[in-house]
Amino acid sequence: MTADSRPARPAVLGQNQYGKAENRVVRITRDGATHHVKDLSVSVALSGDMDEVHYSGSNANVLPTDTAKNTVYAFAKEYGIESAEQFGIHLARHFVTGREPIHRARVRIEEYAWERIETSGAGEAGHSFVRSGQEARLAQITYDGERWEVVSGLKDLVVMNSTNSEFRGYARDEYTTLEETRDRVLATRVRGRWRFGWTDDEQPMPDWEESYEQTRRHLLQAFAETYSLSLQQTLYQMGARVIGHRGEIDEVRFSLPNQHHFLVDLEPFGLSNDNEVYFAADRPYGLIEATVLRDGCEARIPEDLTDL
Amino acid sequence: MTADSRPARPAVLGQNQYGKAENRVVRITRDGATHHVKDLSVSVALSGDMDEVHYSGSNANVLPTDTAKNTVYAFAKEYGIESAEQFGIHLARHFVTGREPIHRARVRIEEYAWERIETSGAGEAGHSFVRSGQEARLAQITYDGERWEVVSGLKDLVVMNSTNSEFRGYARDEYTTLEETRDRVLATRVRGRWRFGWTDDEQPMPDWEESYEQTRRHLLQAFAETYSLSLQQTLYQMGARVIGHRGEIDEVRFSLPNQHHFLVDLEPFGLSNDNEVYFAADRPYGLIEATVLRDGCEARIPEDLTDL
Amino acid sequence: MTADSRPARPAVLGQNQYGKAENRVVRITRDGATHHVKDLSVSVALSGDMDEVHYSGSNANVLPTDTAKNTVYAFAKEYGIESAEQFGIHLARHFVTGREPIHRARVRIEEYAWERIETSGAGEAGHSFVRSGQEARLAQITYDGERWEVVSGLKDLVVMNSTNSEFRGYARDEYTTLEETRDRVLATRVRGRWRFGWTDDEQPMPDWEESYEQTRRHLLQAFAETYSLSLQQTLYQMGARVIGHRGEIDEVRFSLPNQHHFLVDLEPFGLSNDNEVYFAADRPYGLIEATVLRDGCEARIPEDLTDL
Amino acid sequence: MTADSRPARPAVLGQNQYGKAENRVVRITRDGATHHVKDLSVSVALSGDMDEVHYSGSNANVLPTDTAKNTVYAFAKEYGIESAEQFGIHLARHFVTGREPIHRARVRIEEYAWERIETSGAGEAGHSFVRSGQEARLAQITYDGERWEVVSGLKDLVVMNSTNSEFRGYARDEYTTLEETRDRVLATRVRGRWRFGWTDDEQPMPDWEESYEQTRRHLLQAFAETYSLSLQQTLYQMGARVIGHRGEIDEVRFSLPNQHHFLVDLEPFGLSNDNEVYFAADRPYGLIEATVLRDGCEARIPEDLTDL
Repeated sequence: MTADSRPARPAVLGQNQYGKAENRVVRITRDGATHHVKDLSVSVALSGDMDEVHYSGSNANVLPTDTAKNTVYAFAKEYGIESAEQFGIHLARHFVTGREPIHRARVRIEEYAWERIETSGAGEAGHSFVRSGQEARLAQITYDGERWEVVSGLKDLVVMNSTNSEFRGYARDEYTTLEETRDRVLATRVRGRWRFGWTDDEQPMPDWEESYEQTRRHLLQAFAETYSLSLQQTLYQMGARVIGHRGEIDEVRFSLPNQHHFLVDLEPFGLSNDNEVYFAADRPYGLIEATVLRDGCEARIPEDLTDL
Repeated sequence: MTADSRPARPAVLGQNQYGKAENRVVRITRDGATHHVKDLSVSVALSGDMDEVHYSGSNANVLPTDTAKNTVYAFAKEYGIESAEQFGIHLARHFVTGREPIHRARVRIEEYAWERIETSGAGEAGHSFVRSGQEARLAQITYDGERWEVVSGLKDLVVMNSTNSEFRGYARDEYTTLEETRDRVLATRVRGRWRFGWTDDEQPMPDWEESYEQTRRHLLQAFAETYSLSLQQTLYQMGARVIGHRGEIDEVRFSLPNQHHFLVDLEPFGLSNDNEVYFAADRPYGLIEATVLRDGCEARIPEDLTDL
Repeated sequence: MTADSRPARPAVLGQNQYGKAENRVVRITRDGATHHVKDLSVSVALSGDMDEVHYSGSNANVLPTDTAKNTVYAFAKEYGIESAEQFGIHLARHFVTGREPIHRARVRIEEYAWERIETSGAGEAGHSFVRSGQEARLAQITYDGERWEVVSGLKDLVVMNSTNSEFRGYARDEYTTLEETRDRVLATRVRGRWRFGWTDDEQPMPDWEESYEQTRRHLLQAFAETYSLSLQQTLYQMGARVIGHRGEIDEVRFSLPNQHHFLVDLEPFGLSNDNEVYFAADRPYGLIEATVLRDGCEARIPEDLTDL
Repeated sequence: MTADSRPARPAVLGQNQYGKAENRVVRITRDGATHHVKDLSVSVALSGDMDEVHYSGSNANVLPTDTAKNTVYAFAKEYGIESAEQFGIHLARHFVTGREPIHRARVRIEEYAWERIETSGAGEAGHSFVRSGQEARLAQITYDGERWEVVSGLKDLVVMNSTNSEFRGYARDEYTTLEETRDRVLATRVRGRWRFGWTDDEQPMPDWEESYEQTRRHLLQAFAETYSLSLQQTLYQMGARVIGHRGEIDEVRFSLPNQHHFLVDLEPFGLSNDNEVYFAADRPYGLIEATVLRDGCEARIPEDLTDL
């Protein structure tokens, strides 16, 4: 941008980025009759020397978002998809190192898992799959030419404890009507993000697939095994378990809606309800959000967990 | 309705029904430390002698929809929830036999499955669950005081064959540009409904849980094991497999969107694409719908498969 | 289908149809600097002599769904889009009259309205639009080579009366706890379908655009102007108003969720609530469905209103 | 938190907040026969001295989220709802000034507009409304006991220019296949946020309702009146127009998906397509995001625009 193109402008450009979002790529790898599937939604966001396109509409520095899309599909062939994180690293490196005006690339990936279908012969059909339907796995890879930031995570993992949850001893004011409980259902739809310590090509890279499987296992187990006095406590235990067991992860953030299950009052019908029959409410819901950090590490995951 | 209340009316009332929809009921059953969960959305629709409420607004024959909701929760306690179908049968019988002006009850149920979470001791936490996230199971129970109709089913079961699917030899006209293929991805999001032969309290009742598990297994296996020349053929095989193996079922209908996976043209980038990299499209999609019947049985499942 | 291809088959094919769903077509018509937009989602379903493709996988009678898609776009150019109904009539006629094995075509259309944006000069920009965001307009055209059936409608038109609604004098049983009210909020998300008397090319065709505008106006006004003793009564008034004013329409069906607005109990906080503060609940909701017919006409709209 | 309660903890708590989300409140104000509606979804997030509830499960500092819900409804009565912003200010002040352990409150509000229904007498029914269905209005109010931050905005405002949009002169690399165009459809679903200069109770407060109406008008007009060389340029013009005309606003951020309308190739059918027939694609889409600032002001709106 030259000074000429911006004469006495009261409105100046701030942070900006552009790219192609939600490129749906399915990669089949054939190992004889046994096929493997990677099913991703890939979103690319590029930043850099982009003042002119905003101020004057000159596209000279703008690689089309259509090209970003083409690159996603071409790289799925050229590099394969070992893991969402590794695939994002290939893409981010390409955009930042190859194109002069691009100074930063952020690749966000949503991954859908598929399970094999068992045949009537009770073996597995090597080419037949049913979508797992549980959480979507998430990965965000950011690169500025020097430093990597990888944040992985998940969303829509719905969990419930049917007991071992209390809520009492809380503060009260003039608008408090809630009654204490020593036994409630605790249910939530987990959104989690975790940031890796890996930032530099010189460091050994984590095993992204193994890391995801283990992190998912730890947070599920911490949820199941914590006798809960509050959802905040459960959240912290989930985060601490991950930090404690996975040395490659420095920071975890969860956003946990408290999906209320209200015990239905059956007394008008002459019936007791000994924690048996619940109404599962949609809205409103409690929302508990927190970051858990490896001591000494910096918090970098934003307050709001966005998917895209 | 008296003649007086309807003087020379050009607009007359036709089929009508009313009730409470999407009652979310979660039923916990405790077997010592091992809990069991049934998680349903229950919709009740009642029909009968309801002309007056439409014509004059008299609610004398109208049992409030709020009462239908209360009944769902009370019955979850009184009868438990053995299966969605059995629960719907209790409800439908209650409304039709107990209330004079109600001549027909239709109960629709959506069920969400939960799996147990394994603990770090590798056993299962008896009270901790993760929602399965695959298909929603469906049941529709209709009763008119004499005859039962039970239609079960599922939706949102997403499946894919990465090979063993062709599409060629089709008709052509002046708007046909599609090229034939001998190897494509075949993916669909299964919506299925199946109607039981059971219609009468005198007949032995099917084992609803077992029937669902086996029917689901058969349709998945038929999908996986059919070398497909068209999605219609696969659909028929899925239906025929169910009819062939499950004597309690007389009719099956599927609605199968053909979720297109387009092979990406990588030639502009000097790359081949040997059925490896696909673009998964959202819209438009093919939509294949058909009924498969036990020979001699009547078709009763409507053309359109609705959820609610 | 020959007898040979179906030896002792216990599972026989019933009603079936296939086609391409949700073809998103936007048609711009330029009248100098003033542009006009038609924005549709078009779904085509074809039926006919299709046994073989189900039984043996032979596609000889199957015009590809891709061809249906191409035809939609080609017809948008060839015929333009005067109205959703007229466009569907062109398409349905084409498939049934041109292709021997196709005996019936059903075209479903969803239409999204756009309004013009006013410029800072306070005139209208002829080429700039904002999507109306209210209801989606619906049309379904079915043709079997002899008889037309046109059903139009809408969905997602959300309306509310903040008074002039009661609910009392209803039936009670042992599960009834609801209290009567003489003043409540009545809110619903209207789904409506209406069937035209026009069935034959020899008859004069309705003005589809005018008919839609007027029908929409009548049902809104009937909702607003009815002092409601029950949502059933309001529904009947909406239908009767349409039948009474629009001679081209023989049958109307509505599906009206009663979107409950519960008066919040503010007494614990020392506050009264004189029909001022409401909690708008999501689920469960009442669901009121009925057909209103021109006296002497046959009911043909199915019990369940489906969109696709 | 005392040192005792945190012995050698490798996992420490970072930013955290909790509250009740999506409280659906509808406020009716009666001005004789003319009623007014405010329809909001209100989400409250509180932060402060909350270490103990995470580490040990002690709820002593935790005002229940149920109390936050009650407060929303009570305040709708006590203060009314002049505007979403003013309502949020009442709530945030209450939580921060009244409760010792709470140091920060963030209130997020989504507002749905209602229009009046015209009666058959062509006047307006004072108590009958149809939901506008266009954008949802957004407001976020944050207070730490000293400084206010108000960010307003909208989402889901869908706009289209059917001409006056080009895209050419862009950068190319080996993955670029896109062809240049001098006339395309430009369509987007606007998400915008704007931050007010008002931060202090001593300053005069903006007229929130007027400010929203005018800002919405300016961004629509800038969209309509810009001859677009790129969506980035249009975005900047939208932001600059707001900054230029609304002195109370210091910062605007937009997230604009480029909802591609592809010109359909009709040549195989012997037809031309002179910018008449388009395929409206769902995914992938371009995504253009940028902040526009009043010169000299600080950027505070986060990179990702979240709704909740």
